[in-house]
Amino acid sequence: MTVHHFQPNHYYNTIGQHEPVLKICDGDTVVTTTVDARGWDQTGESAAQRGNPMTGPFYVEEAMPGDTLAVHFDSITPNRVWGWTSNILAPNVVDPDTAAKLPPSEIVRWTVDVPEGVAFLEKPTPKLANLKLPLRPFLGCFGVAPSKGQAISTATSGEHGGNMDYNGLVSGVTVYFPVSAEGALFHLGDGHALQGDGEIVGTGIEISMDVRFTVKLLKGKKIGWPRGESDTHVFCIGNARPLDQALQHATTEMLSMLQEDYGLTASEASHLMGQAVKYDVANVFNPAYSVVCKMPKSVLASL
Amino acid sequence: MTVHHFQPNHYYNTIGQHEPVLKICDGDTVVTTTVDARGWDQTGESAAQRGNPMTGPFYVEEAMPGDTLAVHFDSITPNRVWGWTSNILAPNVVDPDTAAKLPPSEIVRWTVDVPEGVAFLEKPTPKLANLKLPLRPFLGCFGVAPSKGQAISTATSGEHGGNMDYNGLVSGVTVYFPVSAEGALFHLGDGHALQGDGEIVGTGIEISMDVRFTVKLLKGKKIGWPRGESDTHVFCIGNARPLDQALQHATTEMLSMLQEDYGLTASEASHLMGQAVKYDVANVFNPAYSVVCKMPKSVLASL
Amino acid sequence: MTVHHFQPNHYYNTIGQHEPVLKICDGDTVVTTTVDARGWDQTGESAAQRGNPMTGPFYVEEAMPGDTLAVHFDSITPNRVWGWTSNILAPNVVDPDTAAKLPPSEIVRWTVDVPEGVAFLEKPTPKLANLKLPLRPFLGCFGVAPSKGQAISTATSGEHGGNMDYNGLVSGVTVYFPVSAEGALFHLGDGHALQGDGEIVGTGIEISMDVRFTVKLLKGKKIGWPRGESDTHVFCIGNARPLDQALQHATTEMLSMLQEDYGLTASEASHLMGQAVKYDVANVFNPAYSVVCKMPKSVLASL
Amino acid sequence: MTVHHFQPNHYYNTIGQHEPVLKICDGDTVVTTTVDARGWDQTGESAAQRGNPMTGPFYVEEAMPGDTLAVHFDSITPNRVWGWTSNILAPNVVDPDTAAKLPPSEIVRWTVDVPEGVAFLEKPTPKLANLKLPLRPFLGCFGVAPSKGQAISTATSGEHGGNMDYNGLVSGVTVYFPVSAEGALFHLGDGHALQGDGEIVGTGIEISMDVRFTVKLLKGKKIGWPRGESDTHVFCIGNARPLDQALQHATTEMLSMLQEDYGLTASEASHLMGQAVKYDVANVFNPAYSVVCKMPKSVLASL
Repeated sequence: MTVHHFQPNHYYNTIGQHEPVLKICDGDTVVTTTVDARGWDQTGESAAQRGNPMTGPFYVEEAMPGDTLAVHFDSITPNRVWGWTSNILAPNVVDPDTAAKLPPSEIVRWTVDVPEGVAFLEKPTPKLANLKLPLRPFLGCFGVAPSKGQAISTATSGEHGGNMDYNGLVSGVTVYFPVSAEGALFHLGDGHALQGDGEIVGTGIEISMDVRFTVKLLKGKKIGWPRGESDTHVFCIGNARPLDQALQHATTEMLSMLQEDYGLTASEASHLMGQAVKYDVANVFNPAYSVVCKMPKSVLASL
Repeated sequence: MTVHHFQPNHYYNTIGQHEPVLKICDGDTVVTTTVDARGWDQTGESAAQRGNPMTGPFYVEEAMPGDTLAVHFDSITPNRVWGWTSNILAPNVVDPDTAAKLPPSEIVRWTVDVPEGVAFLEKPTPKLANLKLPLRPFLGCFGVAPSKGQAISTATSGEHGGNMDYNGLVSGVTVYFPVSAEGALFHLGDGHALQGDGEIVGTGIEISMDVRFTVKLLKGKKIGWPRGESDTHVFCIGNARPLDQALQHATTEMLSMLQEDYGLTASEASHLMGQAVKYDVANVFNPAYSVVCKMPKSVLASL
Repeated sequence: MTVHHFQPNHYYNTIGQHEPVLKICDGDTVVTTTVDARGWDQTGESAAQRGNPMTGPFYVEEAMPGDTLAVHFDSITPNRVWGWTSNILAPNVVDPDTAAKLPPSEIVRWTVDVPEGVAFLEKPTPKLANLKLPLRPFLGCFGVAPSKGQAISTATSGEHGGNMDYNGLVSGVTVYFPVSAEGALFHLGDGHALQGDGEIVGTGIEISMDVRFTVKLLKGKKIGWPRGESDTHVFCIGNARPLDQALQHATTEMLSMLQEDYGLTASEASHLMGQAVKYDVANVFNPAYSVVCKMPKSVLASL
Repeated sequence: MTVHHFQPNHYYNTIGQHEPVLKICDGDTVVTTTVDARGWDQTGESAAQRGNPMTGPFYVEEAMPGDTLAVHFDSITPNRVWGWTSNILAPNVVDPDTAAKLPPSEIVRWTVDVPEGVAFLEKPTPKLANLKLPLRPFLGCFGVAPSKGQAISTATSGEHGGNMDYNGLVSGVTVYFPVSAEGALFHLGDGHALQGDGEIVGTGIEISMDVRFTVKLLKGKKIGWPRGESDTHVFCIGNARPLDQALQHATTEMLSMLQEDYGLTASEASHLMGQAVKYDVANVFNPAYSVVCKMPKSVLASL
């Protein structure tokens, strides 16, 4: 159970079988940093090429295709005092006729006050002068090397994780990935100080982060899509376009999980899911959208 | 402010310009009953043709196209001790390969214990013997006569409301509809004792209901899609296929609402929405899916 | 086998169980006229409310739910010398970013020269001065009363037909509809002098028409979606959003047709369809899109 | 203008920046072979790992990001006497309820008679004993290295081409690709002796091929998506899910082409497209679907 401190000096804009920056073991903890979606680091300097540059990959000893890698986020903390957002809804999240009338989007800065736990616009209009939103820091993009030797852009997501932009993946949550390459090769980046559902302006409050995470290797455990666990829910994430297919993937994975991990029949699982499931719309902006299918632990506790 | 007691003796399977069963005034309250989705009433007898038979329509004096009708649900209470669900996920909510392997669906009965506030399977498998789910009664299908003299099946939904199957439309919530016909012509039915997000088995726990609601007429107020207000959120509902378009409608309506009712610019509204909006997936089963775009009142309070 | 001459004096903007304008028999022919999508008649006068006003409905004696109505178009001929189109792509047929940059759409007039068989812009830009497109007249919107007493806007389409805007439905083609109401109640209108696939500017060359059609009643023949037959193909039409679902409906109906009418197994039908089917994208503009699944008669002739 | 004869001895299951097998020049011709989708070569032996193994990549001297690579297919000829297909419609191309009832799919062999120009089932059922389909050989998967150093599975497609499975890409057609890596890095494989639209059983008649192609480099010519030219049409291919988005990409690229290459305004281009465009549904099976937007050369000749 080693704690590794790793300071990145180069970044990748794809998730794939890149040369590992560090080899770690099952149970180890990593303390590291991530730059923001445009590659700006904690000093505000450009440290990497834009498009969600990734810290890593971290090679997990003994991880092999067919295993599952669990990543527990011990802490995710903005490491500078400002972030940025786009200021106009993305054209694909409104009706096409409305999209045709939206003004062009610009980048706007927010003050991120970690001690106070809030963010607010640096130069608000009078209407928004009192707007303070509670911080809820998470990473928008992280995952493991995909199958078949693919190298997939950090603009998008898939079975390997990637740019899911799910605001539920905060500190304290554990995320599970299907391992598809030797060493799993975990990448991370694209921090958001907070974000609404769907990432509908195309950004959260984009910011560089201090991150501490702990890995656990589940040998021989096979999963199809990223899964996770919070204090209150277990969940499955589906990544695809359209939103309908992302939901199908997440729902199918939940069905598999209830059948395999809880020993339920299709009908028993359907009863739980039909009457108790919750969905989150993680992102409807990236090339692949992300939908989360959640089951309350309280319901599972009755089994 | 009259309280009308109305006992239905016939029902409609479309929402349209049917002969009103009662004329009521702005501010009036109606106490009535609804049969379940298959037309079974509180005694368990078949009282209407299946397919979400509607109580009503109720004619609201002075309501004209271009107005908005507000319907506040004072109470929605199951009026019998059992409901029913399907027991298998609908084939369209899972991956097509998985759909091809699902067993056929059957109807299963649940006990609905209103005093205890829970529902449980009448004949559970051993695994589900301790499953008790908290009641959260709502109506799956209700709305006003649609535009252009249309009569729309209660299987589906649109700008007029209809079969939205949104589990957030519980007692205490107010729903707003765009009036498209003289008298608004409010219809209601399809009660659910509770339901998970998405109505992914194709049913909630289907049940007959006692309903009490109060109408308010907003003369000259124009809206595009159903809106609503709960203790914590204001929200807009979009109904369409695919899910992406339902989300676009809900998001567009929220943008309109923030611009028209709160005087925000597109950029100000985008800041609120991008960083604070929540989405609910109401249904992904009916011919039109339903997505809800929600804004916390706490955020609006800062304006 | 009577030939009826019918001159309409009122029109409907929904397809539903309206009072019939004429009762006809199996085998009868009707010679009538239609106004254009905005209600302008052959003299250019406004004769009906815009939104695809329909001539009819025609009541077919003995037609009952569960039958099929065949409508053969004997001739469809523009009855005035000009039509009109929109001049800009609809925002939903291009990428959302591109939609945001399209100029607003305007209505533009075309000369429709029936003797020469061509259409050309009345006031072309120099670049388009020599553009002459061959006429291929068809009706954009026609169908029978839908099921369950519904009255469905002529803006959209469904199992009953409606606003399919399929440029393959020209003179000489037979179209088959599932009968859902007594008398079938056939409506027709929305003539197009010609149109590209998809109706991607939101219009064809919109024009009033002289139409001659002959009905045939197939008692006890059940179909799910509109079908058709041309000199070279049999085809099935699916109407829905998104395009994927319209294609699913059309493909499913073709599978049913090959199984029921040609006695093929699922595997035999799959061989024909997998290696020989053609798709047409009829419209991607209306609330429901339309996709056509076509099988060459030459392939069926080998059975 | 060299003619290169190249016999592959290894294959890739991604399209990416792999080590080139040959360096060729603008204007050169390559004569080579491809194995089928499961890696079976002309002798029927397994020569590569399944999943559309690619011959190549071919490095084109002086090709740089921002250029366009034109690939003309001089000939595409099956080099063995049998191919194979799946025998059941893919579950995603029919209605979900129908998908749930389809039998499992099996692989079936066809005789491919190149001299006679036809294919027929090796062991037909009596009903299909006379079925002979005309050959129309093409490659299902080919393209250039994608942007950003990505390596993309040959199961799918994108701006770089890939697994488009478009039955229009036959001998005599020229296809254009946006170059995103030094040398362009052209890959090819996945031959089909013939295929219906949409690849709706998940395969064409899969077969190994002899291929002869000639490259041309268009320095400084930028395009967004694959384009092509046949004797009768110019066309643009969009690859995405859902079908709606594939169509949006293809339509947007056609609009760009008409504006940039033909000097048309958005309105002039819209007139041509709205009234004269044709769409082909290339595939509705792969992770990304493919739609083709086609403009008749006869229409362009009038400009």
